[in-house]
Amino acid sequence: MKTLENDRFLRALLREPVDVTPVWMMRQAGRYLPEYRATRARAGSFMDLCKSPQLACEVTLQPLERFPLDAAILFSDILTIPDAMGLGLHFAEGEGPRFEHPVRCAADIDKLGVPDPELELKYVMDAVRTIRRELHGRVPLIGFSGSPWTLATYMVEGGSSKEYAHVKGMLYDRPELMHALLDTLAQTVTAYLNAQIAAGAQAVMVFDTWGGILTPRDYREFSLRYMAQIVAGLTREADGRRVPVVLFTKGGGAWLEAMADTGCDALGVDWTLDLGDARRRVGDRVALQGNMDPAVLYASPERIRQEVAAILKSYGRGSGHVFNLGHGIHQHVDPQRAAAFIEAVHELSPSWHP
Amino acid sequence: MKTLENDRFLRALLREPVDVTPVWMMRQAGRYLPEYRATRARAGSFMDLCKSPQLACEVTLQPLERFPLDAAILFSDILTIPDAMGLGLHFAEGEGPRFEHPVRCAADIDKLGVPDPELELKYVMDAVRTIRRELHGRVPLIGFSGSPWTLATYMVEGGSSKEYAHVKGMLYDRPELMHALLDTLAQTVTAYLNAQIAAGAQAVMVFDTWGGILTPRDYREFSLRYMAQIVAGLTREADGRRVPVVLFTKGGGAWLEAMADTGCDALGVDWTLDLGDARRRVGDRVALQGNMDPAVLYASPERIRQEVAAILKSYGRGSGHVFNLGHGIHQHVDPQRAAAFIEAVHELSPSWHP
Repeated sequence: MKTLENDRFLRALLREPVDVTPVWMMRQAGRYLPEYRATRARAGSFMDLCKSPQLACEVTLQPLERFPLDAAILFSDILTIPDAMGLGLHFAEGEGPRFEHPVRCAADIDKLGVPDPELELKYVMDAVRTIRRELHGRVPLIGFSGSPWTLATYMVEGGSSKEYAHVKGMLYDRPELMHALLDTLAQTVTAYLNAQIAAGAQAVMVFDTWGGILTPRDYREFSLRYMAQIVAGLTREADGRRVPVVLFTKGGGAWLEAMADTGCDALGVDWTLDLGDARRRVGDRVALQGNMDPAVLYASPERIRQEVAAILKSYGRGSGHVFNLGHGIHQHVDPQRAAAFIEAVHELSPSWHP
Repeated sequence: MKTLENDRFLRALLREPVDVTPVWMMRQAGRYLPEYRATRARAGSFMDLCKSPQLACEVTLQPLERFPLDAAILFSDILTIPDAMGLGLHFAEGEGPRFEHPVRCAADIDKLGVPDPELELKYVMDAVRTIRRELHGRVPLIGFSGSPWTLATYMVEGGSSKEYAHVKGMLYDRPELMHALLDTLAQTVTAYLNAQIAAGAQAVMVFDTWGGILTPRDYREFSLRYMAQIVAGLTREADGRRVPVVLFTKGGGAWLEAMADTGCDALGVDWTLDLGDARRRVGDRVALQGNMDPAVLYASPERIRQEVAAILKSYGRGSGHVFNLGHGIHQHVDPQRAAAFIEAVHELSPSWHP
């Protein structure tokens, strides 16, 4: 494997000195880019795009052709796992994901096996291998998965939800079933991320999109516990380098200390907390990734630059910060605003490094 | 006016001793009740229901016929204000609220006047008077309004939103416009709530449904500041009793201390924080209202009772707690589960009061 030309991202996640604060954007390969929309149109369905290693590689690299990003992230979807488990995923146009066979009872859960990542999810591993090769060591490649709790919400509801009637009903009334499901998912995610690491992912991130809908007690019992199980089971070295693990619970700002205790390397932080406060709370235990409101990208380049400056100042001096948005980039953002954001991070951050 | 038969709710909001923890449910007059759905069908549109004082009174009282609730809340909608401002509110079936004339520029904002509550919003005041009369002093009547920031999100977006492109664009790029809009709204909400108090509301609540989508700094500048302006402008006494003011920012758990500093009497608390922690943080400055996850009502009566017991224990001994859900009751909840919830609060809480 070629040595990395730009390893700022990995160094910052491990709180090693960097010259410039590294930056990438959640959902950087996405609908705000016309070239993405073109590839997506060629692919057919959204899952056809995910399942083609060549096309997944193509869209993964698109934002890197435009912007001097410090990391690439595998183009895929968190629902590849329930799809591989046989739940019958499809995307109804304009309606979000739907599962033909939601998981509602003990029998449904008993039927679920742990998919072999190199069989049922081989297309993801092929995408990782293809992207890694095509990157030629320019920047590191991030692999990812949904958290067990987040995957469970989709699997039990049978799709997206507003009220989470089924999944919360199971959590409150049949916690033993919920734990059985989450344990199977934690095993699956561990194997899935380890396979991504073996295929070439140089860092991995767990997206706990729906951890924030839980009470503090239930968050620890039904979400964090299984993320900790995953962290403990991950391969933490590849190509002679440490593979950092990032946990991100959207709306989980109150629980950073507990998240840092899992043994992960870094935490994703949304924009509802001040990054400096977050840093004071976690101390030198973990790095932080975030946390600009994605809606700032609707503002002028000057205003974007101002916000970048404020966040850099809030984090303060030294390494341990990966700049990112606090959530995925919105589809209606002008790519030029994304360019202004990335440029501002690179131009303004050097003065915060020794 | 008749003396109140049951004033636990008002006493708890003022942290005065009570025998039993009072309980009510956000959206207690709503779609989970078959009798509500019947009245709604008779009324025509949702706004027709809001605009008929007789029918609004009817649905306000429906949950009180079923359950021994400790408060009634005016049946209305937070969007009555922008409707009265001439934005052309309509509800497309299954699509949520839409405004014909969203507020996007200085000229749009300049055109907005402060509606006279006894003219453009007289139907709301008539509903308050009717309900108050029909209640015969059984329990207190709560009046309410949306917060200026929350109303602004709908007015600028022209309806509900996921990404808040327009309103955040205005906030970040044209803060002076946003402040002009919020100031007009704060004046309007103050006049609206004072008119509700004059018409008979015995407590008032400000719903800041979307304060939680802001950064901590923007929350203080664009949401909390205007709620504080409202609190300072409210009539705080009626019929020789104090009229308590409750502020509720959904997802605002991180900002309780700052909210308590506004001079309000109580804070609504959602289920993402532990009520005991919240109490330790605000001390004896304000009462707390909340905070059971509305999804617990999908569980068995036994499980509901367990959760009620846990929340009572978390709050601990003494007054200053109004039991409620952390958000509105979901439409698919079985009313019998709501009954089990209310019964559990009344049966289990006396031992926490001296």
